[in-house]
Amino acid sequence: MSDIKKVVLAYSGGLDTSVILKWLQDAYQCEVVTFTADIGQGEELEPARAKALQLGIKPENIFIDDLREEFVRDFVFPMFRANTIYEGEYLLGTSIARPLIAKRQIEIANQVGADAVSHGATGKGNDQVRFELGYYALKPGVKVIAPWREWDLLSREKLLTYAEQAGIPIEMKHKQGGAPYSMDANLLHISFEGRHLEDPKAEAEESMWRWTVSPEAAPDSPEYIDIEFEQGDPVALNGVRLKPHEMLAKLNELGGKHGIGRLDLVENRYVGMKSRGCYETPGGTILLKAHRGIESITLDREVGHLKDDLMARYASLIYNGYWWSPERKALQVLIDHTQQHVNGWVRIKLYKGGVSVVSRDSKDTLFDQTIATFDDDGGAYNQADAGGFIKLNALRMRIAARKRS
Amino acid sequence: MSDIKKVVLAYSGGLDTSVILKWLQDAYQCEVVTFTADIGQGEELEPARAKALQLGIKPENIFIDDLREEFVRDFVFPMFRANTIYEGEYLLGTSIARPLIAKRQIEIANQVGADAVSHGATGKGNDQVRFELGYYALKPGVKVIAPWREWDLLSREKLLTYAEQAGIPIEMKHKQGGAPYSMDANLLHISFEGRHLEDPKAEAEESMWRWTVSPEAAPDSPEYIDIEFEQGDPVALNGVRLKPHEMLAKLNELGGKHGIGRLDLVENRYVGMKSRGCYETPGGTILLKAHRGIESITLDREVGHLKDDLMARYASLIYNGYWWSPERKALQVLIDHTQQHVNGWVRIKLYKGGVSVVSRDSKDTLFDQTIATFDDDGGAYNQADAGGFIKLNALRMRIAARKRS
Amino acid sequence: MSDIKKVVLAYSGGLDTSVILKWLQDAYQCEVVTFTADIGQGEELEPARAKALQLGIKPENIFIDDLREEFVRDFVFPMFRANTIYEGEYLLGTSIARPLIAKRQIEIANQVGADAVSHGATGKGNDQVRFELGYYALKPGVKVIAPWREWDLLSREKLLTYAEQAGIPIEMKHKQGGAPYSMDANLLHISFEGRHLEDPKAEAEESMWRWTVSPEAAPDSPEYIDIEFEQGDPVALNGVRLKPHEMLAKLNELGGKHGIGRLDLVENRYVGMKSRGCYETPGGTILLKAHRGIESITLDREVGHLKDDLMARYASLIYNGYWWSPERKALQVLIDHTQQHVNGWVRIKLYKGGVSVVSRDSKDTLFDQTIATFDDDGGAYNQADAGGFIKLNALRMRIAARKRS
Amino acid sequence: MSDIKKVVLAYSGGLDTSVILKWLQDAYQCEVVTFTADIGQGEELEPARAKALQLGIKPENIFIDDLREEFVRDFVFPMFRANTIYEGEYLLGTSIARPLIAKRQIEIANQVGADAVSHGATGKGNDQVRFELGYYALKPGVKVIAPWREWDLLSREKLLTYAEQAGIPIEMKHKQGGAPYSMDANLLHISFEGRHLEDPKAEAEESMWRWTVSPEAAPDSPEYIDIEFEQGDPVALNGVRLKPHEMLAKLNELGGKHGIGRLDLVENRYVGMKSRGCYETPGGTILLKAHRGIESITLDREVGHLKDDLMARYASLIYNGYWWSPERKALQVLIDHTQQHVNGWVRIKLYKGGVSVVSRDSKDTLFDQTIATFDDDGGAYNQADAGGFIKLNALRMRIAARKRS
Repeated sequence: MSDIKKVVLAYSGGLDTSVILKWLQDAYQCEVVTFTADIGQGEELEPARAKALQLGIKPENIFIDDLREEFVRDFVFPMFRANTIYEGEYLLGTSIARPLIAKRQIEIANQVGADAVSHGATGKGNDQVRFELGYYALKPGVKVIAPWREWDLLSREKLLTYAEQAGIPIEMKHKQGGAPYSMDANLLHISFEGRHLEDPKAEAEESMWRWTVSPEAAPDSPEYIDIEFEQGDPVALNGVRLKPHEMLAKLNELGGKHGIGRLDLVENRYVGMKSRGCYETPGGTILLKAHRGIESITLDREVGHLKDDLMARYASLIYNGYWWSPERKALQVLIDHTQQHVNGWVRIKLYKGGVSVVSRDSKDTLFDQTIATFDDDGGAYNQADAGGFIKLNALRMRIAARKRS
Repeated sequence: MSDIKKVVLAYSGGLDTSVILKWLQDAYQCEVVTFTADIGQGEELEPARAKALQLGIKPENIFIDDLREEFVRDFVFPMFRANTIYEGEYLLGTSIARPLIAKRQIEIANQVGADAVSHGATGKGNDQVRFELGYYALKPGVKVIAPWREWDLLSREKLLTYAEQAGIPIEMKHKQGGAPYSMDANLLHISFEGRHLEDPKAEAEESMWRWTVSPEAAPDSPEYIDIEFEQGDPVALNGVRLKPHEMLAKLNELGGKHGIGRLDLVENRYVGMKSRGCYETPGGTILLKAHRGIESITLDREVGHLKDDLMARYASLIYNGYWWSPERKALQVLIDHTQQHVNGWVRIKLYKGGVSVVSRDSKDTLFDQTIATFDDDGGAYNQADAGGFIKLNALRMRIAARKRS
Repeated sequence: MSDIKKVVLAYSGGLDTSVILKWLQDAYQCEVVTFTADIGQGEELEPARAKALQLGIKPENIFIDDLREEFVRDFVFPMFRANTIYEGEYLLGTSIARPLIAKRQIEIANQVGADAVSHGATGKGNDQVRFELGYYALKPGVKVIAPWREWDLLSREKLLTYAEQAGIPIEMKHKQGGAPYSMDANLLHISFEGRHLEDPKAEAEESMWRWTVSPEAAPDSPEYIDIEFEQGDPVALNGVRLKPHEMLAKLNELGGKHGIGRLDLVENRYVGMKSRGCYETPGGTILLKAHRGIESITLDREVGHLKDDLMARYASLIYNGYWWSPERKALQVLIDHTQQHVNGWVRIKLYKGGVSVVSRDSKDTLFDQTIATFDDDGGAYNQADAGGFIKLNALRMRIAARKRS
Repeated sequence: MSDIKKVVLAYSGGLDTSVILKWLQDAYQCEVVTFTADIGQGEELEPARAKALQLGIKPENIFIDDLREEFVRDFVFPMFRANTIYEGEYLLGTSIARPLIAKRQIEIANQVGADAVSHGATGKGNDQVRFELGYYALKPGVKVIAPWREWDLLSREKLLTYAEQAGIPIEMKHKQGGAPYSMDANLLHISFEGRHLEDPKAEAEESMWRWTVSPEAAPDSPEYIDIEFEQGDPVALNGVRLKPHEMLAKLNELGGKHGIGRLDLVENRYVGMKSRGCYETPGGTILLKAHRGIESITLDREVGHLKDDLMARYASLIYNGYWWSPERKALQVLIDHTQQHVNGWVRIKLYKGGVSVVSRDSKDTLFDQTIATFDDDGGAYNQADAGGFIKLNALRMRIAARKRS
């Protein structure tokens, strides 16, 4: 074990990170600082404080922060400006939370003079990469402790035994075999993976889903909502201005009620294997659709296509943990620049799992009824122009056909 | 008017192309050959023959072809291998039909020795481009007559007057102001645009939709279907092998029944303006989801990402009418190559407008449960490898942070 | 002819634009305003004023501007930040000058209350597109008069006859059959196309080249120069700070002396045909190499690759005339953002047509000798990390090979 | 040390791989099979056999292959079809040789029943990645021994001591401090890196270069050569048909004589650091220019642009070692498809480090003089078409300018 003096641990208060807390003390003989963030996972944070105290952490070494607004404003919304989807399906709910946690953890490390940071992500997943790329980018000399890659507590039994010996309180569910899935939640989504889901053939059980009712159980009548955008971000819902995290919370509530945003997919992890994941992203699913809707009338065609061409790359960067990389920032500068006229509102219909745009308008609209109409346009558009347009676009193909046939 | 001897007209039998038929005879004093194709638009074709005869076309100059199988096999399915979507939403139902019509029209022109072709698309839309780029690519010296860009029948009244004078039978609906939308259908979709839809703020009327029930009117119980794929194409439904056009017809029926595949959007036309379109693509919506599902377990990650990075470009090529271009063909060669292992089946849930993948399997799966599991994997994956993986991926950011802070 | 009151003509003072000047007066019966710019083409501008006066233009309608600094600062240098090359070869010397002329022409039109603009580019080339896309983007309602697409003076004889009748002085060279090439020059390059060059088999004659000596005639000893960059732009040469246009002029002088920057190629025009062009870009050729050199030590790898992936698209936008488009601007924002640390100097060797970087350094260098060395690095880099890095990068291929063999 | 029975070592016969040979025997107590390939590095191979025998390798365990033709035909030429350049400069001479060595090594491993392979690349460079990704892709269960990442012979002294004790003959140069650079050669290039080059400020010494004379020392008269292409590959030089490796050897000779193909650059390694490299690629430099030249008249514009857009990605794949990956193969399928009409010849001028295309022709040319000419074209191209072309391309910008100003 290398020589560590003080380590900042991303601490949830749950069994795993409590074991890590003790193991860090044991294995590294170092001072442990805990950091617990509210990013909308929907859990009380004070129990984490109590547990940390109980495990011997000094009060001044316990950091608990409400990061919900920052999370949505500086991470979720910027990502949605790009209509970001990974591999055609996944809205990146987990991926987008990690960079913020890494950033805050490093801030705390700088503040308390810690030389190391630690997290509870396993050596098989993406989260370790996302945390650690963040750590290294923001504090290049920091030491990173990833217990799951170091210790020998690789089975459930060993972990429980260690916990027991360390005096860590163990909830009944853990003794009974543990959760059937690994879950992770924040304001954007809740995810499920592992165990019962490890067979891509097996349908997910209805009881697994937490944030959304099933479409079958959703109301029998549709609900219409109006979302207003400014520079690509949603700012008002049904006429009421909301802060970013309030907006997303409200959209989650609406989406959840109408059975919106469930996903069951097999994705490609950055570390090289395929993995099955289930996700509930009720608010995000609505937001993506609405943002596409407002862009459809306010964004120039070629700018939109440029964004579409870059989107998958941008999504991979976030999925793979490169939020703090210079290439993600360069893309963000482009994306943000394109949003200056993305203003206006979209009317959305929510019904039994479905989200559809039914209406949209903007003072910055590029839709020009005079030009678009198939009726008489009074000369706004000269149809004869299309002849030359087509002929020159066809020219290279005509020359080739003539020369080579 | 240039000197045309014989022209092949893409003839639907409807009012507009009947007027064009007469106008071609009048204006160009040339022999007219009509070509009517069944691409699944759901209309009888024999009335078109009768009408052509009635308008003076010689029997040997009337061509009526059932192109449904070719359409789905050689155009729709190849396009779906790429998970093609234009501007994040549109499944390209109209775009993909035009190249086939152009190709067949040129074949007929070559067969009958025609020197010109003609179509009924307006000078404002994309279809003129799609037709004509096809014509020029396949027969570079052909003359193209686009009546809407040439004549002066630009108002509805003038058109009706001309029809009346030419002895073209006019259905009642045309006299009563015409359809509230311009519609176009084939096996992949039915589209609506123009007139009542020209205000993006106005919600589409429920009565507009033809192929799908509303989600509200769909069955209250979900239906599960199994789709089997071979090399990226669907080949069997619930265990029954189907020809391409049978497959798509069956999926349309299922999708229509469950209210699946309605779209209301504003798109960017190639000729430069924004346009509002509504689409019903019931079978295609299911197919896209299913194809993504089977690819998720059979396609290599980087191959999938390469496809995703190229998809928007490929979609634009089809949307803009470049099916017969060398660049579309080059992309197709790549896309087809990637599908050799895209075999297996996907279980899909259909419910009130929603399509979800609940299960998937393949003898060619790349999902490796031993590697993926969070439980003990018996050494199949060495978690310590991730440490080096992350450190080298972070190296450039660490150097930059160290050098520049 | 539509109703034009006042037109601003891009006027060189040469025969063609003088004929256009008269033709505009004749055909449109409108007031003509001439605009002549110095963008470094190396010609006196006062003769253009004299000729305009002689052709009846009012003094207040003659605009002559020295745009050299603006040209290099706001057009050439931004383009070089992207290492822009069209089709692997062409440095876009003509393309980059047109947007500035269009912009200034529109400014003048607004100032003098003109309703139209006109230029002397033919209907076959790229320049008409570059001019007119600029006009329309900056003043959407402007009327554009492109005489070459309108008039019937399509042969040299007709043009000369018209000129004679209009009292336009004709230089001897025009009477003797005209130049063997069409030439165009600005501070970035001089181009040759047409006539003698229209056979891609025929080698260009040595006598054609103007700005560069042949490599054979260049000095027998190499010359070394140091170029200093700030934020991606060259700011000093051999320690002497220079303004943008001074820098480019000086590099042209050096490059010309050493036979640098000749190009003979066949390019693809936007209007659809292939065209043979010869170019001399002495300073630009040096600058491109030097910029790559300074980026090589100051730019992050992935940012550099992102730029490289976007470069060809950016080049096409400029070549095709989309400088004033929102998509070019969006890309520029990204490109400019990446240049903030592109500071430092590069030593360049010039010798008989060759440009090579022999040395480079920067206070912002990302080159880390401690890490890079193959000698003992004192633990800066842990070679064992590479094992994990490779294993995880190989994982998907190993799984595929195992599953499918 | 894990349990290895038989290992195939990529063996050059030099000091380093001889030490590795002994170390493998010592550390793993396993049977060593040596593989030495002629890929045009310009060294005798029989000394390697003698040395292997001397170090105790059984004759049947010594493999020596002449892979020159396969190397150029199946690796170098396919790569040049894409005009491949890494980071704007590097022709990938080292990168492209590794996949072949890996492939042959695995073939031998399969033939002799070896369970492991080994190479002499360090833990800091790209070559370890290129070798090992190849091994794993082609034989997923193989064990890889990378001695430089495992042993403790990290200083020159330790290595020499080990060699002495193991009875390995040591050439004088090693005792005198070793070469001032690390060199690697094959038919495509010779590379130099490390030691004296580790300061990017320091100009490379003239004495370093091996394959090329300096431009200053090159002949004072230019030499013209004709290269003929078939389907994108060079097949004849000055009218003489040559096999792939003969062609490249001949071009190397010509290029070397004229001082062509020297490069001095700083590149970004896949493992995360910047590295300074010098390269001589005389034949490749000529070939790249010539291939661009023949493509310029035979390749469709949009196909060429598609290739340009993908080139940097393809180059990175090769640089990073992904030759055997499915995504490289998918891109290759596209690239190869585009070359079917890339036939014809190019005349090249070689002079003092410069390569220029002066003439080109092809029976498959797409250059159409009738269309391209600025003289009277007899109506082949209708200039008026350009008006419509421009107007529709400008439409979206005009609408935006009108709506937003």
